[in-house]
Amino acid sequence: MSLFRDNIVSMPPYVPGEQPAPGSRVIKLNTNENPYPPSPAALAVLHSLDGELLRRYCDPAATELRLAAAKVYGVDADWIIAGNGSDDLLAMVMLACAAPGRKAAYAMPTYVLYRTLAQMQDAPFDEPPYDEDYHLPMAALLAAQAAVTLVATPNSPSGTSAPTRELAELAAGLRGLLVIDEAYVDFAEADAMELVKQFPNVLVLRTLSKGYGLAGLRVGLGVGQPALLKGLVKVKDSYNVGAIPAVVGAAALGDQAYKNACAAKVKASRARLSADLTRLGFRVWPSQSNFLLARPADGQAARLYLGLKERGILVRYFNEPRLDDKLRITVGADRQDQALTAALAELT
Amino acid sequence: MSLFRDNIVSMPPYVPGEQPAPGSRVIKLNTNENPYPPSPAALAVLHSLDGELLRRYCDPAATELRLAAAKVYGVDADWIIAGNGSDDLLAMVMLACAAPGRKAAYAMPTYVLYRTLAQMQDAPFDEPPYDEDYHLPMAALLAAQAAVTLVATPNSPSGTSAPTRELAELAAGLRGLLVIDEAYVDFAEADAMELVKQFPNVLVLRTLSKGYGLAGLRVGLGVGQPALLKGLVKVKDSYNVGAIPAVVGAAALGDQAYKNACAAKVKASRARLSADLTRLGFRVWPSQSNFLLARPADGQAARLYLGLKERGILVRYFNEPRLDDKLRITVGADRQDQALTAALAELT
Repeated sequence: MSLFRDNIVSMPPYVPGEQPAPGSRVIKLNTNENPYPPSPAALAVLHSLDGELLRRYCDPAATELRLAAAKVYGVDADWIIAGNGSDDLLAMVMLACAAPGRKAAYAMPTYVLYRTLAQMQDAPFDEPPYDEDYHLPMAALLAAQAAVTLVATPNSPSGTSAPTRELAELAAGLRGLLVIDEAYVDFAEADAMELVKQFPNVLVLRTLSKGYGLAGLRVGLGVGQPALLKGLVKVKDSYNVGAIPAVVGAAALGDQAYKNACAAKVKASRARLSADLTRLGFRVWPSQSNFLLARPADGQAARLYLGLKERGILVRYFNEPRLDDKLRITVGADRQDQALTAALAELT
Repeated sequence: MSLFRDNIVSMPPYVPGEQPAPGSRVIKLNTNENPYPPSPAALAVLHSLDGELLRRYCDPAATELRLAAAKVYGVDADWIIAGNGSDDLLAMVMLACAAPGRKAAYAMPTYVLYRTLAQMQDAPFDEPPYDEDYHLPMAALLAAQAAVTLVATPNSPSGTSAPTRELAELAAGLRGLLVIDEAYVDFAEADAMELVKQFPNVLVLRTLSKGYGLAGLRVGLGVGQPALLKGLVKVKDSYNVGAIPAVVGAAALGDQAYKNACAAKVKASRARLSADLTRLGFRVWPSQSNFLLARPADGQAARLYLGLKERGILVRYFNEPRLDDKLRITVGADRQDQALTAALAELT
């Protein structure tokens, strides 16, 4: 007998985006962080914390955080579950729902972690392809009737959004859970939050990592009907959200004006960067997120990725079918985006 | 098909110790927190953090934290894996090792979470009993040949330690993983860290929640041979330890003098509280931890638990076989312990 389960031994490790050492002088456009720092209100809370908050175990229900999220999302707090990042919530979903004989399904390409989490549970997975314009493969997802169906919207790495109408159609037609992963929704024109009220099998995921500039804090939030959340809470680590993320996250959620102002700046930069890349001959997919999927005219994306890296600019390159001719580029502050396009002009 | 897996539907939810609302005036001796606040060095780091640390994703390897831990534990950093509390590491172990056909084993009574985590993986579990003096049921644990064997030492709720010699015997005789959960070791006379160097199947767990007074921060550490950790890292959430716990935890680990001074105070209080309880007619088990298992002369522990609660003093009562005639009492600061014994003197 091996020390580990066979499915763990055979699965490839998940590889997160490169994290250069703190203080290294790079322009980091590879992991879709917000170019703007978190809300001053959140930092003020952080700096006011005392030792007593840390000495004690934190509130397993993360009540303060969930109350703040409830206000923003327009639901009661018992419709919300908090996670140590939304990755933690995705892991809970897979643990609670996926297993041998209980499959996961999602359109590809999408967030690579979905497959990794299914493999951890030794669950089969269906991966019907998005078409070239990133329309959802509705018929294939409905036919799969998976225990868990996941849709990232806006999707990574495409940046494209799924219409709420199609998500509603999935929710109505699927007997299993539909996870609507809205990590990037703060940069989008629409969201699908209304669906949680209509469908008992819908879980909407949000995060403070993108729109709120708090990727290092680790706060994710799941929204769904209380009966659904009761099942998920069973597999939740009691203290998954520490005392600091709970109170700092609540303060960040309380400062919607700041978040919205940062998101507006990112959206304006996105339009400029998209135009600049198009001018350089790239095909750029229409993005509702804080990044752009872009294909250079000659499809030599790996060469550009390496050339940019030599110049101290990190973007994301996926050495995978359908993506190995493209780059995924985080929208930075305008100065960063200009450095990027200048470097690309030299390289192309 | 149910939304959730059958084993999740049928398992009872894990119930953590009561957490009174912040600011409530209770003497909280129910969840084994340290009565002393965390190191001033750790708080100074907390108050110096800037938004840039939070804006970016944290280091998936938690390098700074692991380097600080490596120094304390006398191993290289690649012998260490960091967790969002040691509960997170326990969950990783169960996910990587336990499954239908791959059982967990641990002597009972012990940390209730072990069973919950086995149930989450739909894994069978063997629960051979400790004897009345909390000696390990060696023959039963060896005969079980579980995929994961767990020993909490010092054990909760007994406070007793397992001899390193017996742990070595288990490690040598078991083909599966042996987890030595040393959450409370900062209050003990000995530890079993040396065993990781001798045995490739041993994982030692540590936490900052007890000795370091940082239960709300959520930092756990696992120590084992690099080949073992490579398997565990596969099931680790990439960003399980946030940026703040990583740097604040590193600072706390760097202040051993403070941690040791607090532990010494707790040990002195433990001796006094144990003597006081004995004087009140309790049987008190010999404790190597920061809590005491104590049986009132008449075995009416539930009555005392409720009477103390009415007086604003929380202790832990387990309504379970072998424990329902006992209380588990966290060692507090002397003033808290005196309030407890005064209340018990009235109640008994």
